[in-house]
Amino acid sequence: MKYITFLIQCSDSKGLLAGITAFFYDNNFNILSCQQHTDLYTDKYFMRIKLDMSDLKMSRSDLEESFAKFAEPFKLNWSVSYSDAIPRVAIMVSKTTHCLYDILQKKQEGDLRCEIPLIISNHPDLEFVADQFKIPYYCFPMTKANKAEQEKQILELLDKHHIDLVVMARYMQILSEDFVKRYNYKIINIHHAFLPAFQGARPYMRAYEKGVKLIGATAHYATAELDEGPIIEQDVERVSHESSPEDLMRIGKDIERRVLSSAIRAHLDNQIIITNNRTIIFSS
Amino acid sequence: MKYITFLIQCSDSKGLLAGITAFFYDNNFNILSCQQHTDLYTDKYFMRIKLDMSDLKMSRSDLEESFAKFAEPFKLNWSVSYSDAIPRVAIMVSKTTHCLYDILQKKQEGDLRCEIPLIISNHPDLEFVADQFKIPYYCFPMTKANKAEQEKQILELLDKHHIDLVVMARYMQILSEDFVKRYNYKIINIHHAFLPAFQGARPYMRAYEKGVKLIGATAHYATAELDEGPIIEQDVERVSHESSPEDLMRIGKDIERRVLSSAIRAHLDNQIIITNNRTIIFSS
Amino acid sequence: MKYITFLIQCSDSKGLLAGITAFFYDNNFNILSCQQHTDLYTDKYFMRIKLDMSDLKMSRSDLEESFAKFAEPFKLNWSVSYSDAIPRVAIMVSKTTHCLYDILQKKQEGDLRCEIPLIISNHPDLEFVADQFKIPYYCFPMTKANKAEQEKQILELLDKHHIDLVVMARYMQILSEDFVKRYNYKIINIHHAFLPAFQGARPYMRAYEKGVKLIGATAHYATAELDEGPIIEQDVERVSHESSPEDLMRIGKDIERRVLSSAIRAHLDNQIIITNNRTIIFSS
Amino acid sequence: MKYITFLIQCSDSKGLLAGITAFFYDNNFNILSCQQHTDLYTDKYFMRIKLDMSDLKMSRSDLEESFAKFAEPFKLNWSVSYSDAIPRVAIMVSKTTHCLYDILQKKQEGDLRCEIPLIISNHPDLEFVADQFKIPYYCFPMTKANKAEQEKQILELLDKHHIDLVVMARYMQILSEDFVKRYNYKIINIHHAFLPAFQGARPYMRAYEKGVKLIGATAHYATAELDEGPIIEQDVERVSHESSPEDLMRIGKDIERRVLSSAIRAHLDNQIIITNNRTIIFSS
Repeated sequence: MKYITFLIQCSDSKGLLAGITAFFYDNNFNILSCQQHTDLYTDKYFMRIKLDMSDLKMSRSDLEESFAKFAEPFKLNWSVSYSDAIPRVAIMVSKTTHCLYDILQKKQEGDLRCEIPLIISNHPDLEFVADQFKIPYYCFPMTKANKAEQEKQILELLDKHHIDLVVMARYMQILSEDFVKRYNYKIINIHHAFLPAFQGARPYMRAYEKGVKLIGATAHYATAELDEGPIIEQDVERVSHESSPEDLMRIGKDIERRVLSSAIRAHLDNQIIITNNRTIIFSS
Repeated sequence: MKYITFLIQCSDSKGLLAGITAFFYDNNFNILSCQQHTDLYTDKYFMRIKLDMSDLKMSRSDLEESFAKFAEPFKLNWSVSYSDAIPRVAIMVSKTTHCLYDILQKKQEGDLRCEIPLIISNHPDLEFVADQFKIPYYCFPMTKANKAEQEKQILELLDKHHIDLVVMARYMQILSEDFVKRYNYKIINIHHAFLPAFQGARPYMRAYEKGVKLIGATAHYATAELDEGPIIEQDVERVSHESSPEDLMRIGKDIERRVLSSAIRAHLDNQIIITNNRTIIFSS
Repeated sequence: MKYITFLIQCSDSKGLLAGITAFFYDNNFNILSCQQHTDLYTDKYFMRIKLDMSDLKMSRSDLEESFAKFAEPFKLNWSVSYSDAIPRVAIMVSKTTHCLYDILQKKQEGDLRCEIPLIISNHPDLEFVADQFKIPYYCFPMTKANKAEQEKQILELLDKHHIDLVVMARYMQILSEDFVKRYNYKIINIHHAFLPAFQGARPYMRAYEKGVKLIGATAHYATAELDEGPIIEQDVERVSHESSPEDLMRIGKDIERRVLSSAIRAHLDNQIIITNNRTIIFSS
Repeated sequence: MKYITFLIQCSDSKGLLAGITAFFYDNNFNILSCQQHTDLYTDKYFMRIKLDMSDLKMSRSDLEESFAKFAEPFKLNWSVSYSDAIPRVAIMVSKTTHCLYDILQKKQEGDLRCEIPLIISNHPDLEFVADQFKIPYYCFPMTKANKAEQEKQILELLDKHHIDLVVMARYMQILSEDFVKRYNYKIINIHHAFLPAFQGARPYMRAYEKGVKLIGATAHYATAELDEGPIIEQDVERVSHESSPEDLMRIGKDIERRVLSSAIRAHLDNQIIITNNRTIIFSS
């Protein structure tokens, strides 16, 4: 079954829901699901509407034009996506494989709806994984001196491949502010700690030293401020005084990969609206 | 803020959402939240609508009559509740206090919206807790011989006190089929196991013998079939070979009370629709 | 069954375990459990030994003297406790009841092995709970001006009642450094966040603003540095964009009380050794 | 660092711990860890001792002979393993890849200490995964008629490759009683439900129909009784009325793979003793 998904945000006002649902009904759509959220602090209203695409009797541009006209008086901020447009994802990695295999396996078994036309790394180490899955691998070694030039080339690659989403699957380089802004809210990073605890480097070692009883991982949109972007997903596992820093790293890998792929899935499925550096995540 | 909550179920058909939201808009209501669920197996449609009660400009019976008229052609199965009608809850207990204190404390601190006009038991042991909270305590000792008569008296008490919900807070007697039917889907029981595992007696001992690595608890509506009613909430905790049956009981108490009070809360908040012996639980 | 529990720490060296177990065997003890931990970073060795007290054929002071002699060449740092010496606990509260009821209920039902001779507060609000459980309630209102004097009086009360453990069950005052040092590693506090995230004030509001997907609570020993003492127990619950700050507070209460009582239990059961601002928590 | 690990079980008696630790001390071993468990119901005693292998000054057979002599009067039931003997694991699969990739990735990254000399299947579908990792793949299609013969050939393969552990990584065939007995407690299976709930076929569909609020997975030793062998590891995830049977399957995959690899790890690490159809799992 094919879907059309609208994501909408605006100021709250009476009649919004009735108005929007009437619009789609008048255009002969079956509304498969309609989810809303009202932020009581900002009085903002958020909505996700999923339509049966087989009800679409006009062209996509006509639908969009028509909805744009409808949306204007309400000052709706909106976007639409069609489930037959498969998102194109670039994966960036460094040296560990757990997140990478997880994404590739899920994509291959049909649990992540996307294309993965390329894998980018700052190291040559994981080319063999790309080879296993027959995906082109591009290696851009990074030094302080060449970083700007290398990022420029990466951006060109992303452009050329029409990339919709960049996934930093334990890519251990900080992207420049310029890079991040070019793919605004289109870069998902996995941080190996339960943010806002242990921002920055060596989180497992710091978790060990602090003696926490749970360790976690956080998937978030990359923004100009390191590890400060909107949080998409988090999870934790219990550890104890018996867990060495190496144990924390190993236990953490399983958390990282499931948190990251859950975030990717929510993004690909158009479940996410960002507001005020927080995410609203509608169910799928 | 006061609410009006409609719970609706019907066969799925185009235009339902637009129609229902238009009805409330035309009657000048601000829709605070509108949640839906479609069961793809049975093609049934479920909805929970929450309205701002301050928008109510007619009498309640006029609203209900008007909605009944609207609902007829769609064959909607519906109910309505008003947040200023505080539900009246009877608690039934036997000898352990953990669920009882939890409910009383939460009610007292404003985390459960209800009245608790009486506590009923088959043992005198917990009268002191009722005294602490100044709630009348009724003791009906049960034998095979007197059970029918005692249940009759309990039912009269519940009637007299206009009880909306009966909570079996570790009440260790099986209610008769007649009793359960009189309070159809208005009795919540806590079973001290992760159903459908370990139905029936001595679940912690059986969990110990089986060597499970997690134990759980299940809150469900009581039905004529023991431990077979619609599940409302479940949770688990990790245990190990080091956990004795006594440890399981102790660990289980914390699971039981949080699962039970979470289920009570969902019921009191009109979040639950039952279909096909399963529960749909809308968020609050 | 009565126990003797030894907690031991020292530098690691060959033959420690054989030596210590031989000591107890030679003194005719059945070793019920013997747990060890080696910190590979500091090369320190930690041990908890539980003995059947019915094997004790000498006086307690003779046992301790004898063990002290044995311990000297190994430079063991050790303590011993006897399960028939019931620890005396003072609870400090402010205005919320959830942790307080939890502790009182568990103590009453035999799930926390302790005496609770008094409850101390900076507000009169919770005297009714103390009355319900017939425990003396002492109220010391705090101002900047009287804090030193009030703390002095509290310390005198604790002394007079031979208090072994002070539990800050959502006591919303910061204890002075002097106070904390007088009850060094004998004060357990519950912080309503997953430390080290959201140290300090208003953690639920800050968690809401940050948009975290899990909230937590942390029980730790109070030290001179606020919210920096050794962590004893932590736990989390899932929340979402739908959870208001009030929801976080309510959900958090259940986490707080179970984390706090789990930490109290571990302390009362002599399961904890502190090293390097971290806790080693042996199973019970 | 290399280890020697002893697993011991016997009747409980005074002096066991002192005796065993003295034996190893007298033989000049540093005891890295020594874990015990006493089953109070059966009065049986269980122990795991980990020694620094660099302390081994005699031949392995001399050590074993010497310990056998020591063990005789105590009637110890024991086994020993040396960490430089890498266990050889055969993986059996059918058509889904999630557990298979997980094991292969963890082995490859050093998180599972084993060799994987072959993958066995009843279908040709997953040969491409074996090829990616350059592991021989053997396909034995199964019919009622050929099952006995095919199992015989599989057993010959396992023999020939000196297999220590067989992992059923979603192998959707029931092994015959004879097969299971040949690899007694050396076959680990993953069942896609929280046992003892939903034994047998189609557990996710039955979980959906039952309306459970958590789904789980269970890793256990295969025994002659289907899904009745000693449980090694279990875990669960929260689901809701919104989760379709397909969602349950997808969510379940992540549980299955982490539960299975955790069980494999515990087995390979010699952390498990089986008693009374339950597992004692010492920490690593």
